[in-house]
Amino acid sequence: MGQFMDVHSGFVGATAEQLAAAHELDLAIEADEGVHFERAWLDSNAGRVFCLSTGPSRDAVIRVHERAGHPPGEVYELTAEVS
Amino acid sequence: MGQFMDVHSGFVGATAEQLAAAHELDLAIEADEGVHFERAWLDSNAGRVFCLSTGPSRDAVIRVHERAGHPPGEVYELTAEVS
Repeated sequence: MGQFMDVHSGFVGATAEQLAAAHELDLAIEADEGVHFERAWLDSNAGRVFCLSTGPSRDAVIRVHERAGHPPGEVYELTAEVS
Repeated sequence: MGQFMDVHSGFVGATAEQLAAAHELDLAIEADEGVHFERAWLDSNAGRVFCLSTGPSRDAVIRVHERAGHPPGEVYELTAEVS
């Protein structure tokens, strides 16, 4: 399993409710691809959304987001994490 | 307090140890600015680092990273989160 950060653009003015609704769409279908979206964050002024996920591949993450109607602009496969 | 995601570029080939060392530099001085870096992630192929933090302002986050020697390329002030 890999860990991924994807970035969406174009969400200027989006609300917390819209972020939650988009995330629910991902959660509803993510198991089909063995993906789990752990957390997502919105900057409504810059219009950016960041999604942190685990899954078998970058393509699997992209497929979930595409089927949910919000294909990501960028997907990064993470090689290390600190906390 | 706000929540922030910042993005660094230029870390192609960086290691988990280098990410941990950079994060430790932030943690050592973050209290001076009332900032806390919660988690950070590296994609060593794309050379990107993402840092999730809380703090009083975008400028405070930037000051910590600058003093630690790794000014961020982009800083996003987060307006919503889901998990």
